[in-house]
Amino acid sequence: MLLREVDHVGIAVEDLEAAIEEYRRAFGIEPAHRERVEHQGVDEVLFGVGTSFIQLLGSLGPDTPVGRFLARRGEGIHHIAYRVDDVEAALAALRDAGVRLIDERGRPGSRGTTVAFVHPSAMHGVLVEVVQEGR
Amino acid sequence: MLLREVDHVGIAVEDLEAAIEEYRRAFGIEPAHRERVEHQGVDEVLFGVGTSFIQLLGSLGPDTPVGRFLARRGEGIHHIAYRVDDVEAALAALRDAGVRLIDERGRPGSRGTTVAFVHPSAMHGVLVEVVQEGR
Repeated sequence: MLLREVDHVGIAVEDLEAAIEEYRRAFGIEPAHRERVEHQGVDEVLFGVGTSFIQLLGSLGPDTPVGRFLARRGEGIHHIAYRVDDVEAALAALRDAGVRLIDERGRPGSRGTTVAFVHPSAMHGVLVEVVQEGR
Repeated sequence: MLLREVDHVGIAVEDLEAAIEEYRRAFGIEPAHRERVEHQGVDEVLFGVGTSFIQLLGSLGPDTPVGRFLARRGEGIHHIAYRVDDVEAALAALRDAGVRLIDERGRPGSRGTTVAFVHPSAMHGVLVEVVQEGR
């Protein structure tokens, strides 16, 4: 499997509006995209950095993955996403390598992408996502 | 200040050799660089992913930044590093924006780079590094 790029680094924050303002002020960057992903329970904002994005994640409630992460660990880096050509081929390669998956098939992500998550226990405590542009 | 790229994502691991082997097997990638950075108390290994690197960090002992991170939080993403043209200019811009810094001046990083760290309290719990290629 070829990891093309770091697609994004997802950062869980308590107050999304305050975080956007602080990233804008600290780095002089503007959000490139904003989207509510209801089935993941998040509001997300993307800032472009070269070929990658910084993704700020605000939770839609305490009983969501990001809400539980914030309660357990506080604000911080939530996951790293790698861009791949084909999510299904990536999942097949990971499965062949004996890597434990969260998603056995790709599912819709933001920006019209297809995504899947690898289990953090397989990746030294790191939640890893693979992202394919388009569906 | 211009963030050029995600330079690398640093991941703290307990057993560096085992982690290298697992990244190799899961993603079919080979280490591009390996270096001991004594003054930071780490052994680091870089895998190239497009224009960025995945950086695996093994601690040289419990009383090092990565050793303390592992004791406190366990394995996981330790920091995110952004590539900039000029570390001193980046630090000046961050200082002007009122951002709390760990390093007031650039210092030597691995691969002949110049680096500086921003305080996580200024970045929603995220340890941020800026990296300039060359010295």
